Amino acid sequence: MPNIKLIIEYDGSRFHGWQIQPGVRTVQEELTKVVSMVLREPIRIIHASGRTDAGVHARGQVVSFKSQNAPDLLRLSHAVSSILKGDLAVRSAEIVPDSFHARGSAKSKQYSYFIHNSPTPPVLLYGRVWHVTRPLPLNLLQEESRAFIGEHDFTSVRAADCQGRSPVKTIHELEIKEVMEDLIQIRVVGSGFLKQMVRIIVGTLVDIGKGRIPNDGSSHSIVEQVLAKKTRLAAGITAPPQGLCLDFVTY
Amino acid sequence: MPNIKLIIEYDGSRFHGWQIQPGVRTVQEELTKVVSMVLREPIRIIHASGRTDAGVHARGQVVSFKSQNAPDLLRLSHAVSSILKGDLAVRSAEIVPDSFHARGSAKSKQYSYFIHNSPTPPVLLYGRVWHVTRPLPLNLLQEESRAFIGEHDFTSVRAADCQGRSPVKTIHELEIKEVMEDLIQIRVVGSGFLKQMVRIIVGTLVDIGKGRIPNDGSSHSIVEQVLAKKTRLAAGITAPPQGLCLDFVTY
Repeated sequence: MPNIKLIIEYDGSRFHGWQIQPGVRTVQEELTKVVSMVLREPIRIIHASGRTDAGVHARGQVVSFKSQNAPDLLRLSHAVSSILKGDLAVRSAEIVPDSFHARGSAKSKQYSYFIHNSPTPPVLLYGRVWHVTRPLPLNLLQEESRAFIGEHDFTSVRAADCQGRSPVKTIHELEIKEVMEDLIQIRVVGSGFLKQMVRIIVGTLVDIGKGRIPNDGSSHSIVEQVLAKKTRLAAGITAPPQGLCLDFVTY
Repeated sequence: MPNIKLIIEYDGSRFHGWQIQPGVRTVQEELTKVVSMVLREPIRIIHASGRTDAGVHARGQVVSFKSQNAPDLLRLSHAVSSILKGDLAVRSAEIVPDSFHARGSAKSKQYSYFIHNSPTPPVLLYGRVWHVTRPLPLNLLQEESRAFIGEHDFTSVRAADCQGRSPVKTIHELEIKEVMEDLIQIRVVGSGFLKQMVRIIVGTLVDIGKGRIPNDGSSHSIVEQVLAKKTRLAAGITAPPQGLCLDFVTY
């Protein structure tokens, strides 16, 4: 049974997240249905590198599944992209060794979070950005963000109901820059991420930028203080899903 | 009567172009209706720097109109943006001298055209780009594009039914670059543009990139040959509207 790896792009606003759930349209369910239809064989389960929450986009989500036959991969990619036009596209398809597993084999991931920082609401990037009207102090955000880099206990910036076994993760890179007029990109690369971790990191940085997180007066940065408290209550808000995009996964 | 200038952004896919036409939703009609409603006075006519075709976007279209009163401009901007959420936003509003006219006073305009150059269809930029699957030779396009710069008779690259009095216009800048993976931006600055001129310029460059426009073997570049023929038949296809955006107008 060939083991097939796909790299897919999707518009998170068209799905209720990755994972199959009754009564809502999810990426896993739609993709399983369409791939099964195109290959004319029931595909049991498609694994992803990780779940994406409802509303979160992906430019390079990686999924894998086993097929009974050796399918025409180019035809599969075109057919799936054409059936799900504008919602999801297959960017590449290849046969990989049996040992490959989209989640289990993942080494690191990059996410980007986009903030439309302007008094005016977004139009052309509507649904792709978080609209923050108050001007954000980019230098302060960049300075504070450094404390997230490295291996840390990220308890403070994971969802209260996060089921991850260990709160210790490693962030390799965190870069904040203005990529266009009024458009801020927060790019994060890490070995693995806890539930809503990127969105809470972004929400915390924005709250710090707005002066909403108290400084205890110690010599530590505010982010260091937030992480040391090891409680979700110490961090800022959870940034909304539509600004977040899974860029790519490395193996 | 105060003369009011607005800078507006709109999603061209939500309107059937700028100009009022019976039976379809246009930017001019919607904006006139909403501004009249917010100001509680019937606004007769709103002028734009120029029409945009059905499907064409704007990040910095400039419009002007006269009001009976001195309106609260911040309130006007917020109210219009909020009523037309996701379709249109007012980026700035100011009172200008009576002599100002959005079209008559315009000195130059910048347009950007975006091409998604990839075998895979666009998802996150769906409706904002032209999908060209064959890899385009960027160097050739850049070289050929130079012949469009300067003052020329642009008869070959205007719509066959263009009513513009003179086909002679000046292009100040034309830059082609890959701004992101698979995303090509063609940026054009000019004193004025004929009907569909930017879209035909882009379509002609893409057709040259695909080897679809014959070279007559003279020492002139293909674009020079196209312009010299002074007929729409010599140029390439009209690139689709959804890749085009009016970036800004200078006065």
